[in-house]
Parts: sequence; C-alpha cells; structure tokens
Amino acid sequence: MSLITQLAQEAKAAAYELAVLDEGKKNQVLQDMAEAIRANKQKIIEVNQKEVARAKDNNLEASMVDRLILNDERIEDMAKGIETIVELPDPVGATREFGKRPNGLDIRKMRIPLGVVCMIYEARPNVTADAGALCFKSGNAVILRGGKEALDSSLAIAGLLQDVLEKHKLPKALITVVPDPDRGLMQELMNQRDYIDVIIPRGGEGLINYVTDNAKVPVIQHFKGVCHLYVDKEADLDKAMNLLLNGKTQRTGVCNALEGLLVHQAVAGDFLPKVAEALAEHKVKLHVDERTSKWFPDADVIEESGYGEEYLDLEIAIRVVDDMDHALKHIARFGSNHTEVICTEDKAAATRFQRTADASVVMVNASSRFSDGSQLGLGAEIGIATTKLHAYGPMGLESLTTEKYLVNGEGQIRS
Amino acid sequence: MSLITQLAQEAKAAAYELAVLDEGKKNQVLQDMAEAIRANKQKIIEVNQKEVARAKDNNLEASMVDRLILNDERIEDMAKGIETIVELPDPVGATREFGKRPNGLDIRKMRIPLGVVCMIYEARPNVTADAGALCFKSGNAVILRGGKEALDSSLAIAGLLQDVLEKHKLPKALITVVPDPDRGLMQELMNQRDYIDVIIPRGGEGLINYVTDNAKVPVIQHFKGVCHLYVDKEADLDKAMNLLLNGKTQRTGVCNALEGLLVHQAVAGDFLPKVAEALAEHKVKLHVDERTSKWFPDADVIEESGYGEEYLDLEIAIRVVDDMDHALKHIARFGSNHTEVICTEDKAAATRFQRTADASVVMVNASSRFSDGSQLGLGAEIGIATTKLHAYGPMGLESLTTEKYLVNGEGQIRS
Repeated sequence: MSLITQLAQEAKAAAYELAVLDEGKKNQVLQDMAEAIRANKQKIIEVNQKEVARAKDNNLEASMVDRLILNDERIEDMAKGIETIVELPDPVGATREFGKRPNGLDIRKMRIPLGVVCMIYEARPNVTADAGALCFKSGNAVILRGGKEALDSSLAIAGLLQDVLEKHKLPKALITVVPDPDRGLMQELMNQRDYIDVIIPRGGEGLINYVTDNAKVPVIQHFKGVCHLYVDKEADLDKAMNLLLNGKTQRTGVCNALEGLLVHQAVAGDFLPKVAEALAEHKVKLHVDERTSKWFPDADVIEESGYGEEYLDLEIAIRVVDDMDHALKHIARFGSNHTEVICTEDKAAATRFQRTADASVVMVNASSRFSDGSQLGLGAEIGIATTKLHAYGPMGLESLTTEKYLVNGEGQIRS
Repeated sequence: MSLITQLAQEAKAAAYELAVLDEGKKNQVLQDMAEAIRANKQKIIEVNQKEVARAKDNNLEASMVDRLILNDERIEDMAKGIETIVELPDPVGATREFGKRPNGLDIRKMRIPLGVVCMIYEARPNVTADAGALCFKSGNAVILRGGKEALDSSLAIAGLLQDVLEKHKLPKALITVVPDPDRGLMQELMNQRDYIDVIIPRGGEGLINYVTDNAKVPVIQHFKGVCHLYVDKEADLDKAMNLLLNGKTQRTGVCNALEGLLVHQAVAGDFLPKVAEALAEHKVKLHVDERTSKWFPDADVIEESGYGEEYLDLEIAIRVVDDMDHALKHIARFGSNHTEVICTEDKAAATRFQRTADASVVMVNASSRFSDGSQLGLGAEIGIATTKLHAYGPMGLESLTTEKYLVNGEGQIRS
C-alpha cells in the first residue's frame, strides 16, 4: 500500500473514533494543544529559523518568506487561536426536528462531522495549527499538505499536537502532515475518494485551479475576490467615501479589499471629484471606461472587457452606471461571488440589491473588509467559499459538518 | 462558441432572472406545466412509442425498455408530480438571523438558488419533468442530459415545459435538454465550471463513477445502497422479522432495500431458524460466513471480504456478530453511507447506534424502504446523496439551494 493511501486510511479510521467524542473532552485536548505550542515556542522557532534561512538562500520571494516566518508573536497567536476555538460551540451532535409522518415515523436531523478533511496550502506554517484545531473541534481528521518551504515547521507543530493526542489516548492520525512534498504524492492524495471527504485548498488562484482540475475528491474553492462598492443615487456620500477608502486602502493584498467602484450617474457629479482627490492622496491607480474618464482625466482608460481585475494592490476600476440594474449587471459579469456592497439610504433599494447580487456576502453600508469569519462572528475560519456547493462565503466549524437523518419508529414497514 | 458552452451560458443568464421570481409566480408556471403535460398526453405517447419500438429493435435490455415506456398512467404521474411540487414550500429567500456584532453590524443568512443544475441520467424520460419542475421551483436553471434511447421523449416533454415558460415571458433556457447524445458533448458539459454549479448524475454505479472521474464541475453522488438491518440483543424479534422481510422482499431492485442482516449472538438461536424459514419461503438466496452457516446449512459460505455486495435482487448476506460494536464495525467497513437500521427496545443502544453508524439515514425500528424523499417528508426528491458534501441522504428542494450572508450596517469601517 502506498504511503498516501496508508495515511488516508489511518485518518479515516481515526475520524471514526473522533466523531463520537464529547465536547468537554475535545476542549481539554485543544487547551493542552495551545499550551504545548506555548511551552515549545523556542523549539518551533529554531526549526523555523533554519527553514527561513534556506528559503532566503533559495531566493524565495520576500512575501513568501514573510509568510513563512514564525516569531514569538505569531506563535502566541497560534496558541490563542486554538483557545478561541475552545470557546466556540461544538456543532456536532446537534439534533433538530424534521417532522412526524402520518405513519408515526419521527424524523430528525443530526449534525455530524464530514470525516476526513484535506488542506492543501502554500507556505504558511500557522495553517497547520489553525486547521488542525478547527478540524479537531468539528470532529474531523485532517491531512495537511503545505508548501515544501514550510514543511519542517509544519511537522514540528503537528508533532506537538500529536503528542497531545497520544497523551489523551487518541490516534495521532487525527492530525497528519504529509511528510514528503513530492507533487506525485499530492496527486495521489487528491485521488483518495474512499478516505478523504473534502479538499480545501488555500492559496493563489493557480493553486486553486490546479487542485480543482486534478482532484477526484470534492473541492471547496476560494477563487478570488473582485469586490465592488456600488454608490446608489440615495447614498450618504460621506459614508460612501469612508467605505471606499477603507475597502481599498486599509489593506490591499487581501481578497475582501475593493477592486471596483460603481457610481450611479445621478451622484457622479457630486461624488467623483471628491473620489479623484481622495484616491490621488492615497496614490491609488485608477482604471476607468470612456464615460467615466470625464472625472478622471489622468486615469488609465479601459474597454468594458477590462473590468473584473483582481489588483490586490493600490489600484481600482471605476465606472459610472445608469442605475442599480446596470450596477447589478456589471457585478453579475465581473464579480467573483465574494463580497458586494451597496451604499444607500433607500431601504427598498438595499433589499433588492441584497437579494439580487450574486455574491456570498452582500453588504449594505458596511466595509467589504468585514467579509471574513471572525468579523462575521464565526470565530475562526477554515476558508471562504466562492462556489455555492456545501458552503458559500466564510466557513466556520459548521461548514466542516453535515447532517444525517434519524428516523425513529415502532416497527413500521412500507406497504 | 460550441453548442454546449452556448447552452450553459444561456442557462446561467436565465437562472439570474429566475433567482428573484416570487413563489406565487413560480407556482402558476408549474401548474401550467402540469396541465400542458396532461393536455398533450397523446403527443408524448406517440413520440415515445416510436422510441420504444426502436429500442426493442436494438435489443435494449428489457428493464431499460420498461423504464423508457410512457403510458397514460406514467404521464399522469408526471403531471401529478409537478402539482406536488407546487404544494411544497419555496426555500428561496428565507432569511434567518445570524447575530449582531459588537460594532453594530447585523448579520443574516438568506437562502438562494445554486444557479445552474445539470442532471445526467439514463433512459428515464420522466426525470425530464421531475427535475425540470424541482429545479424551477428552487430557482435553478437545469440542463438535462438523458440517455440517447429516451432523447426524443425528453425533448417532447421539455418542449412542452418550454412553451409554458415562453407563455409566461420567461427564458426557455431555464429548462434545456441537450439535443445531441454524443459523449464528447457530455464531457464538454462536465467541464463548464463557469456556468454550471453542480452535476447530479442518476443511474447505475458505472455512470456515477464515470461522471465523478471526469467532471470538473462539482458532482453530488449517489453511489449505491448496501443497507443493513442490525438485530440487537434487546430486539423485539417479531418487529425484526417484519423489518427484514419488508426491507428485502417488498421491492428488490432499489437502493433502499436491505442487502445485509447482522444479528447479535445472544438472539441468534431464537431468531435465525425463523429467518431461515421465512427467507426460504420468499426464495431469497443467502450468503453467510462460516460462523453463521450453522443456522443456514444450504447457504453460500463466503469469506469476510465477500460481505458488502449490492445484490439488487432476492439475495442477502447474513452475519452473526458479537455485539453492537461488532455490528458497527461491519457497517463502517461494508456499508455504503446510505441507510442503516437497528431493531432494539433498548433506547440507549438505539441512540448510540444512531450517533455512530456512518450513514445518511439511520433508523430505529423502521424499514429501510422508508429511506426516500417522499417517505421522509421532503415531498419530491432530486436524488439521494451518499457523500457528505453539501447534502447527505434524500435531497429535496432545499438541497438545490445554498445560503449567502447579508450584512447590514450604518457605514461601519474596519480599523
């Protein structure tokens, strides 16, 4: 049997044990995990420093090196992250009534873990602890396949978590780091339909596409964030300006930053000169169509098909639209099903926008930057789904579970 | 642009219009569809008879020919099926509170359609009407790719539904039958990740595996039904006998029939001689392991690895087990995540079995034959999922939807 099949099989067997563990016990284990990470801070940093030095020698991109680094603060954040998960309610085992049939059968639904979750991610060793803890709390075994640059750090962290599992007489296979970064093994992992229930890739669009194209196991995708702010004719323009600046400039390299501004023609004359001034001050590069260029003489002029870029930088596309329907059409064509925002004081318009805009998070008078698990009250987040199957938007513990039917009778048979 | 890409694109555009249609309007359209099918019964039958004759000429298997046939009764069933869907509550638009954040943001979740559903199925023309109506009610466009033997009947039925759509000024692309049974086009369909949100294949295990292996679009699978009845040491043996006979003999070619019987050793002596007699009477072929063969001297004796077959016939595998844990281990290894049944009067044992057995439907003292959408109260069913992502078990209208986040603020920005 191949290494990967063996790891996957062991994970599935381990998940079976975890599925019925009660919340109190899971929380004890998690608390011990947080403490183990704190107590072994120095050991983790030593392993990590060697890895960071190697990455620098290999001329890894600076942003990648930055993500790789574990220092005192980041390790404390990992431990605290696990403690946050202790505080979250356990979704597993919750039962709801689903009706009584005329023949007396009582139907309920019970929330259960998915089983085995596989995370495929790039060089962020902290995902090992975050995903390990989220999957554990939700009753799932997890197989972690991180970038090769962070493999030693990931193995060190997972080793600590596994020691805690052993201490509690739980199988180590509940948290597994694939110890070999070979791409062939990754493909094998993506084929394990009998043992792995879902793959959640986290990283750039290239990685997501690669996993989606090649996996035989179901994949939950986070493609990209092309988020728009639509400024309605009934907008409070001061609010609109705050939302624009916060969405575009508070942090740029993130998926919930604004990449597009749509402005109702009725307020363009009032709003856009202020926008030009404010964005110039923040050194934001502008892309506009012919019609909109009137307000932005120095901006890059694009064709309609040039909209929809994910800049991940101090750049934004701006468009004057005829009305809300025009804005919604723009979003339907160029949005990425991530987050869309309307700024308006008109409740009916807000409701229609929220109903119609095809995105996982649709906001009224709030910054797109709130579109993440912790800001929406999920606690910790395992990812954000931009496809609709299973989960849509920020995914918390509940997204790592499903429901089964419970049927209770007194011997009923079908006629 | 290829035919398939064009169909898929049109379906997506049409779905966008349907997503915001209100329930009353959808029900009117559905009612008209039911009437159109009734009014054109003769026309459908004429097309179908030619197709059935051709299938017989081509020596199609008798069971396939049977599924292909549309007569008065089956067409009336289709019309009634649509009327049943009119009665079901529309899941789309339902909103639930999801919490208020310390910064005042109000978070809700709203149920929305998936978008475009693709059904790939074998020669059952009635799926065209059933799936067309279920997808319409749940706000989804549907692309139907049925077996080539039933293509003309499917096109005839879809044509009637499309006429009703047109009459109501709705796009015909909401219900599309792929007009060409070419396998290359089917592969193209399975690649349409930009336009199709989910593929639901219905048919034999071969079809499901083929679609799962080759689709780039997410697939919801119904692999097979290897359902067990576990007779506990605290079972009422009369109930157990009823459940066994109903599960095995009431209908055999279906996924919720029993394929395995597990009996606690403490009641084997009382129960199994009666089982031998009753199953002999029903001419059920038996497969047993060495230990169990003591009660069934004439049965086929199998190795442990011989368990787990889906017979779909008057055949059953029987095993005496040490206790409930032994039964649960057997189910974990040989079950298919479909339906598992315990017969017991011991409430604690029932609860533990329901919590632990890894199946989409877990029953206490009820026949496995109840494991379908209409019997569980879903109304109509689009399929049964035996994998856990998105849906698990019988899938009704709600399974064709997902939830998005609605965030309402008064201009909050992130600091």
